[in-house]
Amino acid sequence: MTDCVFCDIVSGAAPARVVYSDPDVLGFLDIRPITRGHTLLVPRTHSTGLADLAPELGARMLHAGQSVAAAMKRSPLAADGVNLAINDGRAAFQTVFHTHLHVVPRRDGDRLRFVRGMIVRRDPDPDTTAMLLRAALDGTRES
Amino acid sequence: MTDCVFCDIVSGAAPARVVYSDPDVLGFLDIRPITRGHTLLVPRTHSTGLADLAPELGARMLHAGQSVAAAMKRSPLAADGVNLAINDGRAAFQTVFHTHLHVVPRRDGDRLRFVRGMIVRRDPDPDTTAMLLRAALDGTRES
Ligand SMILES: [Zn+2]
Ligand SMILES: [Zn+2]
Repeated sequence: MTDCVFCDIVSGAAPARVVYSDPDVLGFLDIRPITRGHTLLVPRTHSTGLADLAPELGARMLHAGQSVAAAMKRSPLAADGVNLAINDGRAAFQTVFHTHLHVVPRRDGDRLRFVRGMIVRRDPDPDTTAMLLRAALDGTRES
Repeated sequence: MTDCVFCDIVSGAAPARVVYSDPDVLGFLDIRPITRGHTLLVPRTHSTGLADLAPELGARMLHAGQSVAAAMKRSPLAADGVNLAINDGRAAFQTVFHTHLHVVPRRDGDRLRFVRGMIVRRDPDPDTTAMLLRAALDGTRES
């Protein structure tokens, strides 16, 4: 174990519901999802934020975000849209200081649920959610 | 003029307060800023969203976001943090269908102003804001 929970997830020392994996980037469900399927994509190499993120790793992370966003749309989660976000710094709501890209699936008319999700952030069945996303990514992942 | 306002800004047919420019990406102030200095980065080549965004252009756009974020911190806007966001699809608050990266400067303790900004989104002096960001980017831009 290190003092970075995302490094521990990448190394396998800490558990996570993994939905995406490539040589540079790992994706897993946010344990406090804003909406169902809310995924975090992290470069496997540690950086704390935008200032020390290698641009090549940022590129890989964003590309993974495109793949996961497409999977959210074609999965039974049936996302109509997706918010991608990087919160850089405590003032910008960053809480884990290992750079990560939020991928938040959205449904038409879910505006209220999205705002409520900013506070509640709970998925009653995350294992099924992770399974649905992994299935939608299988065999179609770009790399 | 085309039917895409961001293509028109890129071509110079429509006005904007430009703060960032490189061969692939243009950056200008959002006319409805969530906070002061809220900038939009657009690939010069049109795409509607994540599904048709060339990964190389996404990489350039995110890299530009790192440069603009750093400029927001060292400029007199004195950002303590930055939110980067791509809203993909109407369900995810996308209103202009030319892919763009929001770069929103944040200050410690501005949480309320940020939430209020989601509704109000107005800068009383955008020309000065643009000038401050351009000055912070000059001579230090990565490419
Ligand atoms: Zn880490
Ligand atoms: Zn366009």
